[in-house]
Amino acid sequence: MSPGINTSLTRLLGIRTPIILPAMAFASGGLLASQVTQAGGFGFFSPTYSSYDHWASEFTSVRSTLGLSSGPLPVGAGFLGFRLDKDTPDRPRDMLQLALEQQVKAVWLSFGSDLGKWVRHVREYDTSREHKTLVFVVVNTLTDALVAINDWKVDAIIAQGSESGGHGASYAPPLLNLLSTILDAVPEDNRPPIIAAGGLVRPNQVAAMLAMGAAGTVHGTLFLACPASLYKPEAKRLIIAADGQNTVRSYAFDLLRGTTGWPKGVDGRGLTISGVGELQGMEQDVCPPGRDLEVLQKAMQERSEAVVWAGTGVGEVRNSRDPSAIVQELHDGAVAALRGVRDLIVD
Amino acid sequence: MSPGINTSLTRLLGIRTPIILPAMAFASGGLLASQVTQAGGFGFFSPTYSSYDHWASEFTSVRSTLGLSSGPLPVGAGFLGFRLDKDTPDRPRDMLQLALEQQVKAVWLSFGSDLGKWVRHVREYDTSREHKTLVFVVVNTLTDALVAINDWKVDAIIAQGSESGGHGASYAPPLLNLLSTILDAVPEDNRPPIIAAGGLVRPNQVAAMLAMGAAGTVHGTLFLACPASLYKPEAKRLIIAADGQNTVRSYAFDLLRGTTGWPKGVDGRGLTISGVGELQGMEQDVCPPGRDLEVLQKAMQERSEAVVWAGTGVGEVRNSRDPSAIVQELHDGAVAALRGVRDLIVD
Repeated sequence: MSPGINTSLTRLLGIRTPIILPAMAFASGGLLASQVTQAGGFGFFSPTYSSYDHWASEFTSVRSTLGLSSGPLPVGAGFLGFRLDKDTPDRPRDMLQLALEQQVKAVWLSFGSDLGKWVRHVREYDTSREHKTLVFVVVNTLTDALVAINDWKVDAIIAQGSESGGHGASYAPPLLNLLSTILDAVPEDNRPPIIAAGGLVRPNQVAAMLAMGAAGTVHGTLFLACPASLYKPEAKRLIIAADGQNTVRSYAFDLLRGTTGWPKGVDGRGLTISGVGELQGMEQDVCPPGRDLEVLQKAMQERSEAVVWAGTGVGEVRNSRDPSAIVQELHDGAVAALRGVRDLIVD
Repeated sequence: MSPGINTSLTRLLGIRTPIILPAMAFASGGLLASQVTQAGGFGFFSPTYSSYDHWASEFTSVRSTLGLSSGPLPVGAGFLGFRLDKDTPDRPRDMLQLALEQQVKAVWLSFGSDLGKWVRHVREYDTSREHKTLVFVVVNTLTDALVAINDWKVDAIIAQGSESGGHGASYAPPLLNLLSTILDAVPEDNRPPIIAAGGLVRPNQVAAMLAMGAAGTVHGTLFLACPASLYKPEAKRLIIAADGQNTVRSYAFDLLRGTTGWPKGVDGRGLTISGVGELQGMEQDVCPPGRDLEVLQKAMQERSEAVVWAGTGVGEVRNSRDPSAIVQELHDGAVAALRGVRDLIVD
């Protein structure tokens, strides 16, 4: 057994290594999240916002995998704020309600015009019971971080840099800048765990983030090709085939998929596809003048191209492995790198 | 006296802290470079490619500042490969010749179609004398790094990520990805110092890069507002006023300035100016169809806007300070952060 890593996040979650699987709709389901937790990290899973019944079945999967027929669950559930705000047939608020009833250890909230409302919602739910849900919130700017920490009193912050795959703020700084700024703006004794997200796929990056002061690291892209990932086989194949140059941030992806309605300024990073480059600079949810959306979508289909969300670290995903191997490799490599730091200082 | 930092770069250069001022034309001159070296780091300076005589006067300034009337100089000189390749009235090759005669400790080579030629040029010059010039080369991809290390046998690599201000490869990955990949691709015992560049302005970032395995860090933007920086007063004012959201990579900057001719794929990051956003996606050195370059330039002048190169960390530059204060703050903060790493591992 290799040594453990001790940060404010490992203490908060009671885990051995601060490696986090993020909530990713259509990628991290209950099985994948359970496997990451079993590997010593911590897994979040997400609704696909298809049906309430499917969401309910995810909890059956989690309880079965973890061998926990009742009681609190050592995994987390992630929700999109702007979906919780809407009354849609998939009943997003009932999905949150179910996650709370199932006593998930944490909820992950992102992308809403007022996430504070949902933080309060969770806190209020917990007032009448012993189990207390930890609230994690994703931020893309220092301003967002200060609101989440000082006003909403969240239990942990995920600082998501522009390298991140999937949705994020189009204006997010690179992780090295965003994380550094947040860490220096809030005194260590007075802040919740700050977790680094964006482009992180290698052990030496984990060591770097922890040395900077992060309490943990999020790895989305690294788990996309796992057997238990909900990505379709063809998407997993594209993830494994991609190199590090193959991603781009764009509003075009959601337009092409028809998944619009995200809060202002939210775009996404995915594998580069022909035609997306030339759509750069487009406004959110607006097909550029002179372009016909159906023609673009048809051209993509004819080229067998698809929207596949992925972060800048995608080149590191070279095969389909179980989360246990991924977590162990990140952990052992990070510990080795952190040990090496001792030789850097000369008194 | 605070403790020193010991890396392969501090040993190579004989310095106390691995903080590097990069070669930046129109920004880092002989005085600024000398001041960074005096502060315990290491400074490079660059020709402005205006006149040979001006370049010669820089060495007078360096020798005067450092109190070294003869002998080797503990600073470095930086050259653009594509300028060395050309016969122009400013005599770039004679400028390199002078730097070698002046026994600079190191040369910094970047942006050429065959930098290997200039590495060999420096090595050949040194065969007939005792003084050996260290050769540093800037890379933007793993492929470039492997060529520089294995074929050219350079003495140090600067891994320049997309966060970097001024010129860089439009296709460069974010620093966290680029550096991580290079470090893992070449065994530690078998590589020259790898130096991190791009968006680095805070002590905790220095700690992060060293923990990852970098041998040092480059800080260009952080020194742009120093009294000895060659930036004009108005540009320094804009640097100090800018926040972290204020930069963009674009081919448009060089087109607007009339400084074209860079190798294929080289663009630059600078402070955002109106009109540059809408030029995104343009080809290198080509004004977009339907746009008139003179009209764009005139509109900029009327709005008193200027091209000001700057990296993603520009928000951290809040005043004009001497390099000694900057180097000391980076060093002390990095040492403190690295000491904290000891508590992270639980045996």
